[in-house]
Amino acid sequence: MDTIVAVDLGGTQIRVATFSPDSDKPLQIKKIPTKTAKSQPYDRVVEAISSLWPKDKQVRCISAAIPGPVDPKTGVIVSTPNIEGWKDFPLGAKLHNQFNVPVYLGNDANLAAIGEWEYGAGKGHCDLLYLTVSTGIGGGVIINNQLLEGSRGMGGELGHVTVLARGPMCSCGKRGHLEAVASGTAIVRHVKKQLAKGKKSVLQDSDDLTARDIASAARTGDKLAITALARAGKFIGHALADFLVIFNPTIVIFGGGVSFSGDFLFNPMRKALKKNVMDHEYLDNLEITIASLGDDAGLLGALALAKSKTKHDN
Amino acid sequence: MDTIVAVDLGGTQIRVATFSPDSDKPLQIKKIPTKTAKSQPYDRVVEAISSLWPKDKQVRCISAAIPGPVDPKTGVIVSTPNIEGWKDFPLGAKLHNQFNVPVYLGNDANLAAIGEWEYGAGKGHCDLLYLTVSTGIGGGVIINNQLLEGSRGMGGELGHVTVLARGPMCSCGKRGHLEAVASGTAIVRHVKKQLAKGKKSVLQDSDDLTARDIASAARTGDKLAITALARAGKFIGHALADFLVIFNPTIVIFGGGVSFSGDFLFNPMRKALKKNVMDHEYLDNLEITIASLGDDAGLLGALALAKSKTKHDN
Repeated sequence: MDTIVAVDLGGTQIRVATFSPDSDKPLQIKKIPTKTAKSQPYDRVVEAISSLWPKDKQVRCISAAIPGPVDPKTGVIVSTPNIEGWKDFPLGAKLHNQFNVPVYLGNDANLAAIGEWEYGAGKGHCDLLYLTVSTGIGGGVIINNQLLEGSRGMGGELGHVTVLARGPMCSCGKRGHLEAVASGTAIVRHVKKQLAKGKKSVLQDSDDLTARDIASAARTGDKLAITALARAGKFIGHALADFLVIFNPTIVIFGGGVSFSGDFLFNPMRKALKKNVMDHEYLDNLEITIASLGDDAGLLGALALAKSKTKHDN
Repeated sequence: MDTIVAVDLGGTQIRVATFSPDSDKPLQIKKIPTKTAKSQPYDRVVEAISSLWPKDKQVRCISAAIPGPVDPKTGVIVSTPNIEGWKDFPLGAKLHNQFNVPVYLGNDANLAAIGEWEYGAGKGHCDLLYLTVSTGIGGGVIINNQLLEGSRGMGGELGHVTVLARGPMCSCGKRGHLEAVASGTAIVRHVKKQLAKGKKSVLQDSDDLTARDIASAARTGDKLAITALARAGKFIGHALADFLVIFNPTIVIFGGGVSFSGDFLFNPMRKALKKNVMDHEYLDNLEITIASLGDDAGLLGALALAKSKTKHDN
């Protein structure tokens, strides 16, 4: 039996694991920091993979989750805000030259989607939407049992649809995108703005105020916190109404820390969804749920990608 | 060699043609009115297909373009505004029982997309967006050489994304959808509203004012007409910016009568697109063009669908 090497490349940690193609339980797993004083991130990746490289088995491929857009055809990383110097970085070709096996790359939200589809909350669904609401908002889409990548791997960027014309500036430099009004960052920004205006709240304006603090305050009944989460939920519902008519999925899976805000986020979202979606038939039998893979999303997503890309090799 | 029977079902006309799988030139073609005093639309379809049924060849399948949403898995037409009584109508099963061959159905915008991809302006592209701007706005999407259908065939409804919160009522009953602000109907409505307000124009408020009249007036320099088309173009650009980050296609094809308004529509569209799209990389090497199949879109789309559904039979 051959082996798949899965890599989850984060800005702070690199996780590498080896798998048998028929199991989601890792044979071996290794975690190392991405940055050290002595070596560059690429060298760290090579080191981590080498340390797990099986001596007695064939390696079918290396598959890696990347924290940023990547061209799946060329293996070039367009950019990664969290890893310095990796702009137009040909990681696929470099790893291929180093290890002489096929290399597959995908951005982390896309791989979380395919991971949830193969191993997590989306098992058995053919058409699946995954939305991660965290510092930013990312997305991944499975259509007819295939990951949507787009011509240069830049598809599925569900956080960068416009939901509020002339709205606040997004991390990408354009205005009013979903990420700019409904991400954790946007929720914190909204709360800070309201506090500056003198709105009463148990929350205090500080540099380390987080969306998690806001969710906690909401649970104690804090009105500003509740309103801020409801506002984000409403915008997510607007965007989701669009995604449903575009993709007609049977399940929507939410990942990312903000998803744990529960009904404070999801009730207003469902209300906005019903109000805007073209026809109730898109909601009939639609499951809306929370991601189940947690910290393993990157590694299991990379494993699922490897399996989908090499399925005819089985 | 076996034969494919393609059907283009319109509210006023039924077109049926037979094809060899290896050619887009019909062997035989027949057009009959959809409605007569004596017979029902379903009987008309059966009559038209029967009249072309080959006596000396095998029929591989029947494939039909439907003017409304249809479930491709069950062959049930959800509804067709233009054909009375066809709500939840099991056309697929009925035709299968009648002719004893596989039957494939798709809505007309989806089939125009797959037709343009196989035979028209989109040949050679793997990721394609098709948008028809006419009385309404419809869409079709090819991803990785496959038609996006969605779990119940209701995907690709690109005209029903929200572009103007609290905007005018859409034909579907919700507010501010692209169709409600940028279709031919919406352009006419906007002009009529401005005329009622006393805006000067060569155009006259009349029941038979069309988007075509407005495009003609724009070409003579009429300011109201130019502004009305620019407004629609701007909203189409907003929506297209979303579609590009979602699908990352290499080509966008415009069909429908309003597309012939030319730069009056497309220049403002391109401007809004640039302003809103996450990254200019989505526009690099992106082709934006006009559909090339014209009246044959329905039949050739049905043929392309038949080929894609039976490709392993070749």
